[in-house]
Amino acid sequence: MVDYSKFYSSYAREARASDIRELLKVVEKGGVISLAGGLPDPRSFPRDEIARIASEVVERYGEKALQYSPTRGVSHFLEAVRKFSERHGVAVSDSDGIIATVGSQQALYLVGQALLDPGDYVVTEEPTYLGMLQAFRVTGARFLTVPIDEEGMRTDKLEEVLRRARSERLRIKLIYTVPTCHNPAGTTLPMDRRRHLLELAEEYDLLVVEDDPYSFIAFEERDVKPLKTLDKSGRVIYMSTVSKILAPGLRLGWAIGPEPVIAKMELVKQSIDLHTPSLSQFIAAEAMNRGVIDKHIPFIKKLYREKRDAMLEALEEYMPEGARWTRPIGGLFVWVWLPESINSRRLLEKAVEKGVVFVPGDAFYPNGGGENTMRLNFSYPSVEEIREGVRRLAEAVREMVGA
Amino acid sequence: MVDYSKFYSSYAREARASDIRELLKVVEKGGVISLAGGLPDPRSFPRDEIARIASEVVERYGEKALQYSPTRGVSHFLEAVRKFSERHGVAVSDSDGIIATVGSQQALYLVGQALLDPGDYVVTEEPTYLGMLQAFRVTGARFLTVPIDEEGMRTDKLEEVLRRARSERLRIKLIYTVPTCHNPAGTTLPMDRRRHLLELAEEYDLLVVEDDPYSFIAFEERDVKPLKTLDKSGRVIYMSTVSKILAPGLRLGWAIGPEPVIAKMELVKQSIDLHTPSLSQFIAAEAMNRGVIDKHIPFIKKLYREKRDAMLEALEEYMPEGARWTRPIGGLFVWVWLPESINSRRLLEKAVEKGVVFVPGDAFYPNGGGENTMRLNFSYPSVEEIREGVRRLAEAVREMVGA
Repeated sequence: MVDYSKFYSSYAREARASDIRELLKVVEKGGVISLAGGLPDPRSFPRDEIARIASEVVERYGEKALQYSPTRGVSHFLEAVRKFSERHGVAVSDSDGIIATVGSQQALYLVGQALLDPGDYVVTEEPTYLGMLQAFRVTGARFLTVPIDEEGMRTDKLEEVLRRARSERLRIKLIYTVPTCHNPAGTTLPMDRRRHLLELAEEYDLLVVEDDPYSFIAFEERDVKPLKTLDKSGRVIYMSTVSKILAPGLRLGWAIGPEPVIAKMELVKQSIDLHTPSLSQFIAAEAMNRGVIDKHIPFIKKLYREKRDAMLEALEEYMPEGARWTRPIGGLFVWVWLPESINSRRLLEKAVEKGVVFVPGDAFYPNGGGENTMRLNFSYPSVEEIREGVRRLAEAVREMVGA
Repeated sequence: MVDYSKFYSSYAREARASDIRELLKVVEKGGVISLAGGLPDPRSFPRDEIARIASEVVERYGEKALQYSPTRGVSHFLEAVRKFSERHGVAVSDSDGIIATVGSQQALYLVGQALLDPGDYVVTEEPTYLGMLQAFRVTGARFLTVPIDEEGMRTDKLEEVLRRARSERLRIKLIYTVPTCHNPAGTTLPMDRRRHLLELAEEYDLLVVEDDPYSFIAFEERDVKPLKTLDKSGRVIYMSTVSKILAPGLRLGWAIGPEPVIAKMELVKQSIDLHTPSLSQFIAAEAMNRGVIDKHIPFIKKLYREKRDAMLEALEEYMPEGARWTRPIGGLFVWVWLPESINSRRLLEKAVEKGVVFVPGDAFYPNGGGENTMRLNFSYPSVEEIREGVRRLAEAVREMVGA
């Protein structure tokens, strides 16, 4: 018998599957309503158009779409991303580079490998995006967190955090944020806070990672611009994906940022997988260029708006006093603050018994905290499941408050 | 102006684009015949079948093929890989796991992250596969090399290397090898050496990475079995890809190996990109299950056999005495040993003037050496280009020998 454990790297020895993920794997079955996942509604995929485009790009561009392609990305796709971004208010400057990635998760991983050393600090919202924590943690980086309110990151608190870090001589490399339709919090940062954040990045000489999977399908208007567009000095690395506007199964994202940084990300990527699938890039480029995505966006907005409304109404109707929640204008999630006395991991056990699951909020706090919070997904379950799921959940909360 | 260099990780600061790659980027244009690349012939892609399958899987399985999927891979694809492997003589045992990867390059990267720590050693052929060096070097691992002859790794020398390493107390984790149709060397390891290699892995308690992109399209019969199939104790991590049997643009590979090791690779992958594109997996699974690949393989074999023949004939006809080369039974490359006096990087400069390029062999030697060797690709250029390219190259060699 081979003892495999003696072969593991020190990194692999410590890597563990998330306990929450394992728990959810088991219970996300028969009869249990899941408000835990983060999947788009499959009805949001323009299936017929993708089928037609897929077969057409293979027939027409097969020599390239089926062949190896550059690590940076297929030029046809990179050009389509540039035009799509500009059409949607994301400014791409002449000094920017663009790189195609295997989902925006990989864009995060590449940023981590290119910029972060053990002991470096990243500043982010509390709660923050779990995929970012996974991507950045492997570098040995640590996190400084800034509390949020219903409008997102408290930039007054960000200023305090940066000032304290400077006095303690901590080496901060970047601010990571999801300013629009935050995952998990469902918040959208107002313009004045966006400007404040960029001023602070300038003052403290930091880069900013703007993770933006959701702004293209925000279903309520807000007068906000991407940080990338407000940035005048080349500090913002912007990333997005086709996962919520076309289909996650293509596993296709991109990063736009200062060319020297993008060039470093490209070098890192070469070792990992040589390049992003050519076929996915050709399909997405055609879907962008033919207007398939733009034409489809109103349908996706309507779909998610109805579901968000169903969730907010159900929360209003069923949740006991003492709980409060965000009112997202887009994205996939509502964030709930429960009464302080409630621990959401214990709540989850009770909720499983009642046939509903969610993700306990403390998972999104890199430095602990958030024990009385939870993330609810409204994009995947049906309107009926949302209503019934929230009803069951509220019942569990009532019992714990009463207990 | 932002000084980006101060933000780079120590890894990114040292990462450099390969000088050869940069040179080839420039010259692989107008009039220059390239024997440098490693691209499959686009005629080897069953384009019509892929177009049809792509549109059918989106229509029929769109809910899954366009959706997020598990990090391990889509079960439909993993099952197809298991059957395809067994049909082609690659034994998959009950204690094996399979993982879908973004090309077999990513399988290498995951093995590196899962198994290698700084200072660990990997034993491999000299010359060896460049993509492996890129994937493993980032872990801080080092290499011990074993010379080859026309039949591949000299396992008698492997034994010496292992004995010496033991006496020097070097920590070797694994042997990496491309036993069949080696890249870059074009060699195929005979059965007795395969058995010897596995005996040594057993004696020295090592894992073995068997990289096998080419065996399915070997165009001459040899009585060899995969190491994976010969392995009785669970030491072999086998990897392959659809890049040479279907299309590299799907960017799809897999690893088959002991479940505990595959599970560690899965954990590593989660941080990198969450999962391999679902659509690529569905397309490949259908191409395997419908027999599209099996039916297409004879065509690919014929195509490459003709090109290999053209290259060997041209070498025979034009090359001056003192040069010798391998006679590959498959794969994409011929390896050439030039007279000792010739430095192939200097030869490349002369060759560029004459309108032909190749990859200097020293790039494939992790610890230096191989200055008088070169790798020639026969899969991508046409038969005419191969003849003319080798003629020009031989002329450059003659001039250098004469000089």
